[in-house]
Amino acid sequence: MTGTPQKRKLWRDVILFDGVDTLPEPMAVMVEGDRIGRVVPMTEFDEATAAGCEEMARGGVMTPGLVDCHTHLVFGGSRADEFEQRLEGASYEEIARAGGGILSTVNATRAATEAELFEAARPRLEALMRDGVTTVEIKSGYGLTVADELKMLRVARRLGQELPVRVVTTLLGAHALPPEFRDDSDGYIDLVCNEMIPAAATEGLADAVDVFCEKIAFSVAQCEQVFAAAKAHGLSIKAHAEQLSNLGGSAAAARFGALSADHIEFLDEAGVEALREADSVAVLLPGAFHTLRETRLPPIAALRAAGVPMAVATDANPGSSPIFNPTLMLNFACTLFRLTPREALAGMTAHGARALGFHEERLGRIEEGAPADLCLWHVDTPAALAYAIQPGRLRQRVFAGRVCELERDEGERRHV
Amino acid sequence: MTGTPQKRKLWRDVILFDGVDTLPEPMAVMVEGDRIGRVVPMTEFDEATAAGCEEMARGGVMTPGLVDCHTHLVFGGSRADEFEQRLEGASYEEIARAGGGILSTVNATRAATEAELFEAARPRLEALMRDGVTTVEIKSGYGLTVADELKMLRVARRLGQELPVRVVTTLLGAHALPPEFRDDSDGYIDLVCNEMIPAAATEGLADAVDVFCEKIAFSVAQCEQVFAAAKAHGLSIKAHAEQLSNLGGSAAAARFGALSADHIEFLDEAGVEALREADSVAVLLPGAFHTLRETRLPPIAALRAAGVPMAVATDANPGSSPIFNPTLMLNFACTLFRLTPREALAGMTAHGARALGFHEERLGRIEEGAPADLCLWHVDTPAALAYAIQPGRLRQRVFAGRVCELERDEGERRHV
Ligand SMILES: [Zn+2]
Ligand SMILES: [Zn+2]
Repeated sequence: MTGTPQKRKLWRDVILFDGVDTLPEPMAVMVEGDRIGRVVPMTEFDEATAAGCEEMARGGVMTPGLVDCHTHLVFGGSRADEFEQRLEGASYEEIARAGGGILSTVNATRAATEAELFEAARPRLEALMRDGVTTVEIKSGYGLTVADELKMLRVARRLGQELPVRVVTTLLGAHALPPEFRDDSDGYIDLVCNEMIPAAATEGLADAVDVFCEKIAFSVAQCEQVFAAAKAHGLSIKAHAEQLSNLGGSAAAARFGALSADHIEFLDEAGVEALREADSVAVLLPGAFHTLRETRLPPIAALRAAGVPMAVATDANPGSSPIFNPTLMLNFACTLFRLTPREALAGMTAHGARALGFHEERLGRIEEGAPADLCLWHVDTPAALAYAIQPGRLRQRVFAGRVCELERDEGERRHV
Repeated sequence: MTGTPQKRKLWRDVILFDGVDTLPEPMAVMVEGDRIGRVVPMTEFDEATAAGCEEMARGGVMTPGLVDCHTHLVFGGSRADEFEQRLEGASYEEIARAGGGILSTVNATRAATEAELFEAARPRLEALMRDGVTTVEIKSGYGLTVADELKMLRVARRLGQELPVRVVTTLLGAHALPPEFRDDSDGYIDLVCNEMIPAAATEGLADAVDVFCEKIAFSVAQCEQVFAAAKAHGLSIKAHAEQLSNLGGSAAAARFGALSADHIEFLDEAGVEALREADSVAVLLPGAFHTLRETRLPPIAALRAAGVPMAVATDANPGSSPIFNPTLMLNFACTLFRLTPREALAGMTAHGARALGFHEERLGRIEEGAPADLCLWHVDTPAALAYAIQPGRLRQRVFAGRVCELERDEGERRHV
């Protein structure tokens, strides 16, 4: 990281997407400490304004640092073999018999030490950071025991401590039914509510609690039990809901004041209205849509009409979205879901931040007083970030007011 | 680039995808000069084998350098605005009236100097190289005058001279009807056959000739005229065919001994048989399929059954595939077209090379005597390259026996 901490920093002549829209004229952006200072059109800029500033760059497209508000970055093992087996013709049953599916990730995650999970997650997180991420949410959900869920959350916290990125943690104990509770789904929900949530809250390991509300996972009533426990412990609420069917999980989450309902391909008008009333964010996950070859689109027009903020995230996970490329999600949101580039960008900045509870802090916005998380890009217009699929366009990543060297594999490159 | 040119180089303990399949045990790969030397299982490896070798790396997944056998990397302007306008609700007519569509790229390409086109194409090509490409085909087709088509080809040639990558050039004069010939399609084909092809051949600027055979472009009869002219000048033949309808362009190209027929979503059984008989390659372009939201899949099962080699390429271009990310095409080929990871990898190595006429040279293969173009990857299995979408996994890129530093924006990164 460079730049004297005390000195004001200046970017000039930037085309600015401020988290909501692209400003009509080139701007100057100043940063003081870890906050954004003045943001002025170049037509109002004079050298006096810049006095005492360190000039960091001229030109380029600037956006808020990207917020990836839904990931499962911490996990053990790989599902590449399963991906290959399926394409080679193996049936789901054969793969399940061979130990595939989510339980293979659960087994590998349980078997891994905290250090091993950290080392496995680190390059995934670095890939996100190289593509502009400054805030990332990381869920548990592959441990499915109190100890293993807390282990995952500790790894997530440590990633945020050791790398220049803001990590928000979410306890997703109610992700899948562990084999130990095969015939006792309610018993497992009791464990989540009475042991996992209290332990995660006591140790300060979780910022939020999430559930997977689906026929193949947990019922609305079970999810409500989890929401109530989360609320009792002062934790925020999120839900994987309406991905494969319309159970009403989003509306249930909204009744508990959820920050967001995620996936929502099958969300109906009543669900849209519930999110609107609760001020919840609709989190769109086009990577899972792509990987699972889904055909049912989320109700974009209804969400837009209702003014429900739409976030966009990678859903990075080993099964349904092995994707560690946030700007690709901008393209997918536009191409697959027909969002406009502005909506997609807002979805990975201001609305992504809102889905994590940072609305009042104005994270994901570029305006005076907001956190100084910024990206400068090698593109001509903000829309180009969604239009072209081209890794390596990040020019500078600013986290908490500091320009971070782009992370890369120094050792290897020096070796050759 | 590093490594003493004369000294043999050694990679050991690599998991090897050799262009056709993944070998069952860890291998040692030696390189002498610009050719691959011995390739032996580690069980047969001893230190005597390695004597006098410079060890370049241990472990990792090694594949042939990627071959992107179908791109339109050289062009002027950007179509990001048009992408945005369409998503904001503008109709195709409005966009055409506003100067959008392929003719906007033609106008911008004509207006650009050779130096400008080179500078614009360079970061696109570098993005491909950072993702493993060692051989790339680049087409003309946005000039549509003799001078502008030759200008594009000169830029393509120069890219191959200035960057450590093999560039194959293709004259695609018959890409679209230029405005000057709006009512004289046959007159334009005469220009292509009687002036463009001879000029490109005389100046040694084109390795192959390509056409766009489609109702919205050129008829089979017109394409046959172009093929005949190409053949008369000793140039290879390729065709954009059966993308939007089944005109029989692939079979026509096959009759002229085409290296490949590309796109081919609408190819029928007779077309598959024609490709098989002619030993032509079927080039699959899942990026355009994604961008255009196509629903008709290429006849993969029929091609597989007939033993027609399938290549996979980015189709990198500003309109229908603004994609500069070859490993993403491995994922798209699997997820969208249901290729196996092995087929996808062969499609971007051995079969991609075959689609460019390098079959006898054994480009895209890892075996003794083949060109030493290699990639070493940060993944656990070759299938993982198709499974996960994660930029930045390339560990070493070897071009013509030399380990190339991964290209990146040094100036900028040193600045921050
Ligand atoms: Zn998820
Ligand atoms: Zn093409």
